[in-house]
Amino acid sequence: MADQKITPRASDYSQWYLDVIDAGALVDNSPVKGCMVLKPHGYAVWEAIRDDLDRRFKETGHVNAYFPLLIPQSFFSKEAAHVEGFAKECAVVTHHRLRLAEGGGVEPDPASKLEEPLVIRPTSETIIWHMYGKWIDSWRDLPLLINQWANVMRWEMRTRPFLRTAEFLWQEGHTAHASSDEAQAEARQMLGVYTEFARDVLAMPSVAGAKSASERFAGAVDTYTFEVMMQNGWALQGGTSHFLGQNFAKAFDVTFQNQSGEREHVWATSWGVSTRLIGAVVMTHSDDTGLVLPPKVAPVQVAIVPIWKSDEEMASVLAFAEKVAARLKGRVRFKVDTRDGMKPGAKYFEWERKGVPLRLEIGPRDVQGNSVFAAKRNGGKKFGIPVDDNFVAAIQAQLDTIHGELLKAAEDRLASRTYAVKSYDELKAKADAEPGFYAAAWCDDATNEAQIKEETKCTIRCYPLDQQAGAANETCFFSGRPATHRAIFARAY
Amino acid sequence: MADQKITPRASDYSQWYLDVIDAGALVDNSPVKGCMVLKPHGYAVWEAIRDDLDRRFKETGHVNAYFPLLIPQSFFSKEAAHVEGFAKECAVVTHHRLRLAEGGGVEPDPASKLEEPLVIRPTSETIIWHMYGKWIDSWRDLPLLINQWANVMRWEMRTRPFLRTAEFLWQEGHTAHASSDEAQAEARQMLGVYTEFARDVLAMPSVAGAKSASERFAGAVDTYTFEVMMQNGWALQGGTSHFLGQNFAKAFDVTFQNQSGEREHVWATSWGVSTRLIGAVVMTHSDDTGLVLPPKVAPVQVAIVPIWKSDEEMASVLAFAEKVAARLKGRVRFKVDTRDGMKPGAKYFEWERKGVPLRLEIGPRDVQGNSVFAAKRNGGKKFGIPVDDNFVAAIQAQLDTIHGELLKAAEDRLASRTYAVKSYDELKAKADAEPGFYAAAWCDDATNEAQIKEETKCTIRCYPLDQQAGAANETCFFSGRPATHRAIFARAY
Repeated sequence: MADQKITPRASDYSQWYLDVIDAGALVDNSPVKGCMVLKPHGYAVWEAIRDDLDRRFKETGHVNAYFPLLIPQSFFSKEAAHVEGFAKECAVVTHHRLRLAEGGGVEPDPASKLEEPLVIRPTSETIIWHMYGKWIDSWRDLPLLINQWANVMRWEMRTRPFLRTAEFLWQEGHTAHASSDEAQAEARQMLGVYTEFARDVLAMPSVAGAKSASERFAGAVDTYTFEVMMQNGWALQGGTSHFLGQNFAKAFDVTFQNQSGEREHVWATSWGVSTRLIGAVVMTHSDDTGLVLPPKVAPVQVAIVPIWKSDEEMASVLAFAEKVAARLKGRVRFKVDTRDGMKPGAKYFEWERKGVPLRLEIGPRDVQGNSVFAAKRNGGKKFGIPVDDNFVAAIQAQLDTIHGELLKAAEDRLASRTYAVKSYDELKAKADAEPGFYAAAWCDDATNEAQIKEETKCTIRCYPLDQQAGAANETCFFSGRPATHRAIFARAY
Repeated sequence: MADQKITPRASDYSQWYLDVIDAGALVDNSPVKGCMVLKPHGYAVWEAIRDDLDRRFKETGHVNAYFPLLIPQSFFSKEAAHVEGFAKECAVVTHHRLRLAEGGGVEPDPASKLEEPLVIRPTSETIIWHMYGKWIDSWRDLPLLINQWANVMRWEMRTRPFLRTAEFLWQEGHTAHASSDEAQAEARQMLGVYTEFARDVLAMPSVAGAKSASERFAGAVDTYTFEVMMQNGWALQGGTSHFLGQNFAKAFDVTFQNQSGEREHVWATSWGVSTRLIGAVVMTHSDDTGLVLPPKVAPVQVAIVPIWKSDEEMASVLAFAEKVAARLKGRVRFKVDTRDGMKPGAKYFEWERKGVPLRLEIGPRDVQGNSVFAAKRNGGKKFGIPVDDNFVAAIQAQLDTIHGELLKAAEDRLASRTYAVKSYDELKAKADAEPGFYAAAWCDDATNEAQIKEETKCTIRCYPLDQQAGAANETCFFSGRPATHRAIFARAY
C-alpha cells in the first residue's frame, strides 16, 4: 500500500527496492505469474524514455516498423547459437480457439491445434531477418536501419519488477549493412546513443564496453554493453548493442548484389533497451524516503502545494497557484495539488514518495511576497523563488541543477567504488566486504571466468572500450599470464 | 512489387486496395498466417495517428498504463456476454518452454505445460477490471481514466491488411465511474473525440451513432460507433465506444464506497480504434495512381525533386533544394530526392504511389526564378510558389488546402450516396445497383434485422445520434410498424 513504511536501504536492499516502486505507484503485480502492470506513473516514465530515445534514433537515420508478435517455432532452430540462447523459456501458442468446457468455463478446443506451434517473440532477429530476405536485393537497399518498439516475453521463474519479468516493453533495432566495418560502426554508434541518453536524460553514468564470449548475445560476434552501478555496488546491464556479423544473414540466406555485381551475405546489428532501465533509475537515485526521479523523465517535474487555513487564505493561495501554473503550462510538467481535507505534510509525503524533483509550496506569506518556497527532492535547504519574468527560466534552471546533482552523486559513487584489483584474493575479499566494480588486467579464459563466477558470484561485466590500450603489457590478475584485456568484474542483476 | 501496375478501382475494388497498399509500401505479408508486417511507411502513418490521438486523450484527462499481454483462460468466462463474444478465436498459450526435438529442430517441452492456459488478449476488459478491483475502494478513486496502447490478437481465418488481421495495434480506453450518467457521458465524449479526429486529421467524415443490440460489443449496454463510407459505398466501422454499465464491475466484483458510505458497483466504459483506421484512410482517399494520404498523417508531406541535366545544373538545383529544405526543417515533414541515375518521372511516380500530398519540382529555371513548381497529389494544375519570406506559410497553406479538398470530396460522396429508403424493395434494389448508406425509419426487431442481413448483406451500421428526434412518428420501412429509430443500413467491411 502507498502509505506503508519504506524499508531502509541499509537493512534490506531488495525489500527497499520493492517498497520504493510500490510507494512510487510505478507497478503492480498481475494475476499472470511474472507479468507486471505498469501503472500510470510508471508508464509515464517509460513514455518519457521512449520519446527521447525515439528522437535520437530518428536523428541517426533510423525508422520504426512493426513485426509480428508470434514467430514460427522452426525459425528458432535456424541460427545455431540463437537456438541455444532463446529456444528455451518461451511462451508457446499451440491452439487458436477456446470452447465451452463441459464442467463450465472454457478450454482450448482440441480441434484448433496448430500444425506448427508459434512462439511469442523473446526477441525478433529471426522473423525480421526472414523479412529482410524479401526486402534486400541490391547494395541500393542498404543500409536498412529499422527499429521496433514492442513487447517481448521470456518465461522467467524468479522475477523482480522492471529487472526481470516475463513480459516487458523494449525497443529493438535491427540493421543491415553492406560491409562488416559499417555494421561494426553502427553497433558502436548505438552504444554511444545509449550511454549519452543514460547520462543526459537518466543522470546515470555508465561503463561502456564489450562482453566476454560467455556473456555475448546468442548469435552475436560482438556484444557491447553499458553497465550501471546501483547503490549497493552491484552492476546492472543497461542495454546492449550487437554486431551480428553475417550469422543471421546466413541462417536466413539474405544476400545482396554488391557494386561489383557479386552476391554477398549482409552484415547485421541489433540493439535494445527495455523497461529494465526504469529499475536502474530507481536503484541509482532513490533514497529511504522513496522514489527519486531525474527531472527529464519525471512524469510530474514540479508539484505545487497551496497551503491555507481560512477560506479567505484558500481563495488567495489557490488564485496565486493558478497564476504560477499558467506560467509553467506547456513548459514544465506540473501538478497543482488542490485536494481539500488533506494536510500539506501528507501531500509533501506523497509527492516525495512519487519522486517529484521539485516541490513549490505556496502559503499566504508567499502570495504577499509574490514568490514560492521551493524544496528539491534530492535535498538541501528550502529557498524562495520570485514569481517574476524570470520565473519559468528559474524553475527550468533548478530542474537542470537537480539533474546535475543526481548525475554527480552517481558519478562519485561509480568512481569511489570502482577498485583496481591486482590479485584474485583481493577480488574475493572485496566481493564480500566492499561491493563495487573491480577493474583488473585479464587473460581471456572461459574456464577461469566460470571459476571466478562460481566462487565469487562476480562476472565480467565488460571490457571497457576506452581502457584497452596497453592491456597487453599487463599480467592477468588471476592466471598470471599476459593479459588480453582490462576487465570489470562485479556482481550483477 | 512496388513497380507493378495498380488495378483500377472500377475493375476490381478489392484488388485495387491490395495493389495500393503494396505500391505505397505500407505493409507486407508475414510468415505467420494472418499477421502483417507494418513497413516503415505504414508504421509512420500509425505513429502520426497515435501521437495525435494520444494528445487528445490526455487533454480529456486520461493517462496511459500497460497491462499484461496474457490473460488467464478462466477470466473469459466471468462476464456472461463476453464469453460468447471473445472466448472463441484466440491464441492460446499452453507451454512455457521449447526443447530440442529428437529429429532436429525444437518442440514444446511437455514438462512445461501450464496448469491454466493463457490467452493472448483479444481485448483487455477482463484483466483490467481484475486490477481495478484492487485499485478502487472509494468514490475518491473515481473516475479512473486509463488508456492503453497495445497489440491484440483475434484469430481470423480470412484476413485483409489493416481491415482484418490476427494481430493488430490499437488503443483501448477503460474508464471507471461513480455513476451511470457520468459513464454514459464519457462513452459519448470519446466517440466525439474520435469523429473530430477522423474529420480534422484523417479528412474522413463519418456517421456517429449507436449500434443495434445484435451489433453491440460483447458485454456492453450501449455501443457507439462512427461509420465511414468507402469509395465503393461500403461502410467501415472506424472505432467504437462502449457504455458497459456495471457488467464488468459485477463480474469482477469491483465496488466503491459512495459519499453516503454505501458500497455500489462501479460504472464502466471502454473505447478503441486500431490500425484499421489506416485501411479506412487508404480506401477513402486513394485513386488509381496509388495511395493518397491526408497531409496530417503523411510520413512525408512534401517531396522535393531536383531536376538537372548537366553537372553544372545539378550543383545549382541541389544547392537551391538545400535552401528550400533548410526553410522547411522542423516545420514540415519532407524528403529531398537526390537519387542519381533515376529520371524525374520515375521519382514522381514513386512519391505519388506513396501518397505524398505535395511535390515540389526544382529545375534550373525555378532556381533562376527563385521559386518551386508544385503539384498536389490530389490533382489540379501545377503552379509556382515563390521561395520568399512567405514560403513556409504558403506550403502549410497548401497542405491545409489539400486536407480541405480531401475532406470535401469525402463529404460529397457521403452525402450523395446516402439514400433515404421507404421500402424493403427499394433497399434490395439499391443494395445491388447503388452501393451506399441507406437511411430508413426502423422498428427495432432482431429477427427482421437478421432477415435483411441474410437477403441483402446489409447490416444496421448505426442509429445516428443526431437523427433520432421524431423517429417515433414514422413508420418502419420493413415491418410497417411504428418506428423506434432512424437507422443506417449498408454493406460493410
